[in-house]
Amino acid sequence: MRTQVCIIGGGPSGLLLSQLLHRAGIDTVVLERRSRDYVLGRIRAGVLEWGSVELLDQAGVGARMHREGYVHTGTYLAAQNRGFRIDFKERVGKQVMVYGQTEVTADLYHARDEMGGTVIHEAEGVTLHDLDSGAPYVTYTKDGTEHRIDCDWVAGCDGYHGPSRKSIPDSVLREYERVYPFGWLGILSETPPVSHELIYANHERGFALCSMRNENLSRYYVQAPVDDPLEKWTDQAFWDELKRRIPEDAADALVTGPSIEKSIAPLRSFVAEPMRWGRLFLVGDAAHIVPPTGAKGLNLAMGDVHYLNEALKSHYNDRDDHGVETYSERALARVWKSERFSWQLTTMLHRFPDQSPFDQRMQESDLAYLESSEAAQTALAENYVGLPF
Amino acid sequence: MRTQVCIIGGGPSGLLLSQLLHRAGIDTVVLERRSRDYVLGRIRAGVLEWGSVELLDQAGVGARMHREGYVHTGTYLAAQNRGFRIDFKERVGKQVMVYGQTEVTADLYHARDEMGGTVIHEAEGVTLHDLDSGAPYVTYTKDGTEHRIDCDWVAGCDGYHGPSRKSIPDSVLREYERVYPFGWLGILSETPPVSHELIYANHERGFALCSMRNENLSRYYVQAPVDDPLEKWTDQAFWDELKRRIPEDAADALVTGPSIEKSIAPLRSFVAEPMRWGRLFLVGDAAHIVPPTGAKGLNLAMGDVHYLNEALKSHYNDRDDHGVETYSERALARVWKSERFSWQLTTMLHRFPDQSPFDQRMQESDLAYLESSEAAQTALAENYVGLPF
Repeated sequence: MRTQVCIIGGGPSGLLLSQLLHRAGIDTVVLERRSRDYVLGRIRAGVLEWGSVELLDQAGVGARMHREGYVHTGTYLAAQNRGFRIDFKERVGKQVMVYGQTEVTADLYHARDEMGGTVIHEAEGVTLHDLDSGAPYVTYTKDGTEHRIDCDWVAGCDGYHGPSRKSIPDSVLREYERVYPFGWLGILSETPPVSHELIYANHERGFALCSMRNENLSRYYVQAPVDDPLEKWTDQAFWDELKRRIPEDAADALVTGPSIEKSIAPLRSFVAEPMRWGRLFLVGDAAHIVPPTGAKGLNLAMGDVHYLNEALKSHYNDRDDHGVETYSERALARVWKSERFSWQLTTMLHRFPDQSPFDQRMQESDLAYLESSEAAQTALAENYVGLPF
Repeated sequence: MRTQVCIIGGGPSGLLLSQLLHRAGIDTVVLERRSRDYVLGRIRAGVLEWGSVELLDQAGVGARMHREGYVHTGTYLAAQNRGFRIDFKERVGKQVMVYGQTEVTADLYHARDEMGGTVIHEAEGVTLHDLDSGAPYVTYTKDGTEHRIDCDWVAGCDGYHGPSRKSIPDSVLREYERVYPFGWLGILSETPPVSHELIYANHERGFALCSMRNENLSRYYVQAPVDDPLEKWTDQAFWDELKRRIPEDAADALVTGPSIEKSIAPLRSFVAEPMRWGRLFLVGDAAHIVPPTGAKGLNLAMGDVHYLNEALKSHYNDRDDHGVETYSERALARVWKSERFSWQLTTMLHRFPDQSPFDQRMQESDLAYLESSEAAQTALAENYVGLPF
């Protein structure tokens, strides 16, 4: 088989890239290791920057998002059970959209089906070849048969564990990493959210976050040791701990109920450079991971998709390779800024094992300053709603 | 002897408080352990917030400062030999004054002499008594004779090592501290400054700062291990190291010469709470230390002097003790914000022993974001020129 752009990974960034390129007349094949049901069953992030919203609109997949999503014009931050609000709309004239990654993925599959896009699921043993030549190709096995796709470019949208980044020689690749010494214990609960807008809470006992999916589906998190046994966290233990860490009025108003999902996720910062090697582009989690504080993961991937879409359109439609040549540099400039924001928000809000009373006061002072300063709120807001592409 | 306010410490904050209270008709005695020459010989900070400038004006000691000081409307920041400027005037409509602490102290002594203020030097063994009663007193020895001063209030302007803070019972006092794992190697040189405005430089080899006192007196610093032997740092070694860390155009333009002073100072954050106990008020370094990055030490002390001056004027002139009762809370609210700023700027600009390549990139990203964001520059500027009293 032959295509112009072989996209590794059928998650939201691979599908969105495929959709955008297809609409520009560029042929793609998407290879996904898992089944479609598996991909659609993953529960992930839920906050879209406005730039991501516009990119989904540009791809023609925004209709349901605008109908069913929740526009948030602000968020709450809290320290030691006392909260305050940052108004994004007032500070920077923008907002965010709360709409689950699962829904974005479903909308993209629907759109890909409608356009007759090629998405090959359960493609095993995906291997990238001759990326530093003018004629790269990708091989994979499906139903016991080996297949080969010749292409002009390979887009690695295959996440941290996928084969794309690993295809770049060690002598070229530089990796930067920080592993945080805690995790997020999250639950999903069919209860009305305690607040429509998110509440990020710093507390001596650890971070907590109140988030939501819809009027009767809430998502809550508490910072917990990443190796805590889940059995220890009964629903009652979770709700009790959450209430201790959030503002009192929120704790009083919290509607609890049985959890329908419960898991502990690790927190990590990771960046790989460069994001292009020969005919391979890295996109999203294949090149960078952020801790979930600030909800930048999916949004960063969408920024990469934007740059790559523009680069490949210029290549094919205008015979201009400037975008291809500067993709890595442009994407990384934005990536590092979001890494910085996610790291900073994580550092400001979480309890660290070696945290001294002075460090605790620095966190509280950071939040007190943020509450008092329009400039600091504007800086937080412009990052939260998303720096420009 | 009897006075209304016994001020421990004849540095700039003690003298300024004495001067302000005297002008409000309140009687003070200042006790200083050292000689006047010793106090006037200390080389310290050199950047005054505009609120400090106004307070010195209010005290009637600003004339020479306005004649000889340098108004700075911005500063330079640099990462990896590339710099950019933050314009305070443009961002927040304010500026700072470069005028050495030594000069401020000299002006204050001159003013105290002119008003006939009582400043007792070489007062040894200063001891505070009965601070939790309505009749506190202070004893000291001078020229072999013990003296006693009865007073209404004691103002502890006697620095970190002075007796005032140590007079508060351990059961009451809470202390917060962070010691940074490096020092500042500073030199004073009779050379024209490489830049009129300050240059704060982050570099893989460590922090550097270009500062100045006047047209032919420069003050430069490089981060160095606090236990480095000074002999290791010949003038040539210092200049070579400084040039490696600052922007290339600055390194090229740097005029070097013999140092007339050279020393290594440790960096520390420290806060003691509360700042009032009974009849004792803590002011400045007696209650809090900041690392020198951002030049907040003297300015924070002046903020305390402002609050205490207002509180004591209300007490004596309006029989209103609200200011006395809220002094600690009001002063500490501002102290913690400045502690936060000094800690943040220190953390952003210095090389830490356990710093990973990821951490280094976070620092560079912090500076890159600062360069790109008006909001972030505004937040830095409003802290640098001084948060309102």
